[in-house]
Amino acid sequence: MHRVFNFSPGPSTMPESVLRQAADEMLDYRGSGVSVLEMSHRSPAFEDILGGAEADLRELLAIPSNYRVLFMQGGAIGQNAIVPMNLAALRPGRKIDVVVTGEWSRKSWTEAQRYGDVALAASTMDSGHTHMPPASGWALRPDASYVHVCSNETVHGVELHELPDLRALGSEAPLVIDASSNIGSRPIDWTRAALVFAGAQKNLGPSGITVVIVRDDLIGQALPICPSVFDYRVAAEQRSMFNTPPTYPIYLLGLMLQWLKAEGGVAAIEQRNLAKSGRLYAAIDGSGGYYRNPVAVADRSRMNVPFFLRDEALTDRFVDEAEAAGLSALRGHKVVGGLRASIYNAMPLAGVETLVDFMQDFQRRHG
Amino acid sequence: MHRVFNFSPGPSTMPESVLRQAADEMLDYRGSGVSVLEMSHRSPAFEDILGGAEADLRELLAIPSNYRVLFMQGGAIGQNAIVPMNLAALRPGRKIDVVVTGEWSRKSWTEAQRYGDVALAASTMDSGHTHMPPASGWALRPDASYVHVCSNETVHGVELHELPDLRALGSEAPLVIDASSNIGSRPIDWTRAALVFAGAQKNLGPSGITVVIVRDDLIGQALPICPSVFDYRVAAEQRSMFNTPPTYPIYLLGLMLQWLKAEGGVAAIEQRNLAKSGRLYAAIDGSGGYYRNPVAVADRSRMNVPFFLRDEALTDRFVDEAEAAGLSALRGHKVVGGLRASIYNAMPLAGVETLVDFMQDFQRRHG
Repeated sequence: MHRVFNFSPGPSTMPESVLRQAADEMLDYRGSGVSVLEMSHRSPAFEDILGGAEADLRELLAIPSNYRVLFMQGGAIGQNAIVPMNLAALRPGRKIDVVVTGEWSRKSWTEAQRYGDVALAASTMDSGHTHMPPASGWALRPDASYVHVCSNETVHGVELHELPDLRALGSEAPLVIDASSNIGSRPIDWTRAALVFAGAQKNLGPSGITVVIVRDDLIGQALPICPSVFDYRVAAEQRSMFNTPPTYPIYLLGLMLQWLKAEGGVAAIEQRNLAKSGRLYAAIDGSGGYYRNPVAVADRSRMNVPFFLRDEALTDRFVDEAEAAGLSALRGHKVVGGLRASIYNAMPLAGVETLVDFMQDFQRRHG
Repeated sequence: MHRVFNFSPGPSTMPESVLRQAADEMLDYRGSGVSVLEMSHRSPAFEDILGGAEADLRELLAIPSNYRVLFMQGGAIGQNAIVPMNLAALRPGRKIDVVVTGEWSRKSWTEAQRYGDVALAASTMDSGHTHMPPASGWALRPDASYVHVCSNETVHGVELHELPDLRALGSEAPLVIDASSNIGSRPIDWTRAALVFAGAQKNLGPSGITVVIVRDDLIGQALPICPSVFDYRVAAEQRSMFNTPPTYPIYLLGLMLQWLKAEGGVAAIEQRNLAKSGRLYAAIDGSGGYYRNPVAVADRSRMNVPFFLRDEALTDRFVDEAEAAGLSALRGHKVVGGLRASIYNAMPLAGVETLVDFMQDFQRRHG
């Protein structure tokens, strides 16, 4: 068996122990005589899998009891429509304030316009999404139904390191967070976040399963055109079983959460993520300009590290040589070009160390 | 390793060879050094998996070139909203004619009312959904945007054995078919079907992936409130990659299709399904009334066989003893009660034979 260090932005690397367990249980889940793939979602065995995943997520993220955990389909891009279909009517006027800080929040901003009166609370579109606009400068409408932010921009490598206190900024609106690419990598301040959604395929497991954590009082105001299966009230009442859920992705999400607990939980993984990203940024900044990360130091992502070669003509060679050295999927997103290392929870420090060694060797050979 | 005969209505049994291959490839997909779970959906390896699944589905179901194959999320219950969001505006008035023949089409009928002027073309609600209403009697509005039918009712065990020729019935409307529980079990007449959708978790693989096969001319008229990710035009243009697709379910769907080809394709599996269902109905009908199936003989499903004991007080005992004998998930749906054997493509004839032997033995012991 051959394994590489996989820096894919998503779907992304998973712990070998999780994959091994999934393989071992594939034909016969714990003596049941069936695969998890073959189980009725109404069976007691699957109810345990679903309930266990929810309980572990609640424990790991310290989710308060007045928040519902929903397992949905359609990914974060689906939620770009599902959130406004559920929340736009929370207040008259259907006003939605969006902070655009990169590719992902830009998509959220565009899609929300189908369902409400959308305004830019802040945007870094004119400056290439290389910093976070300070919350003190956000233009918040006092009667907005909600405020949308993305806590980590996968493409641009910008992270919101402190959630804003909207009340201190004069807004009573609930804060909605697209946390697809940093959920589970650090604690969440639930005194500030009213709704958090995330596609699982970065820090939590495979693609095909979306986690929505939503405060009770935001549920029950869906627009009449909201499909039943995407109505948070229906999903909450039916415990994510209004339709057949994506059972196998939920099982894998559960295994990922068990792994995260065994690793010491979110506080421990946050320290590891700080060490990993710190090591990589130090290597970039210490390269004498051979490598370059354009993001303001205070706003750099711990999860996605875009970087550029001084001589961009060497980018293809870097990608190819890295691939040959067992360092996979380092090409940057087409929107920004260059290189990108995605170093989610499941990427070990050894992967980052090996990448840094390779970068230094590449510089020596092609400096 | 322990394996049972699993009669679950969905998610449902899969071929052991498919599960074995998935387990073998879990940690290292064909020398790539990554699991399919960990692959970027933009990687050449995953592009091959997706393209192969589409090509195999086209070959197996003889899908004409003017139909698009879309891989979506949200299941058939999602499509109950997504179909009208895409098709209701095909003609002025947004008229949708629905044929209600059981639990599934009843749900489609209810959900469509959010998006159009919905009428019952026919219904068996008053007679317990034990037969198919003949198409010659359907009340079709000449200016309907589309007509919806369910080709197999998973709960009630009623199957539409011949798709209606709407044109011969005086309607120019496209025929939309929810084929979740019989897709891949028999050929589809594309001269009659304009759109076929199916959750995969019965005949095609795991839950979490929905197949939509739609004729070109139905694409491009989505309502403005349709989420981008569920707009057939967007999905077709982006080759089902507008968002991150459920990559692992698509991989498993592909393995299921390869297995189906190796078994001889749809024509061969149809013969096997006829043999399996014929054997089971013969046992029920030949039990002297000890077992009973209430569906009109001509409309009985080849996939889902609901049946009742003359003495319904024995139902729990039947389920428990069957479970102990390695015959799993035979309890009927709560809406109809009794028993149900779901015998999709992947259920071998040996499973049905074992069930029939058990039924006869149970009758001898509790007759």
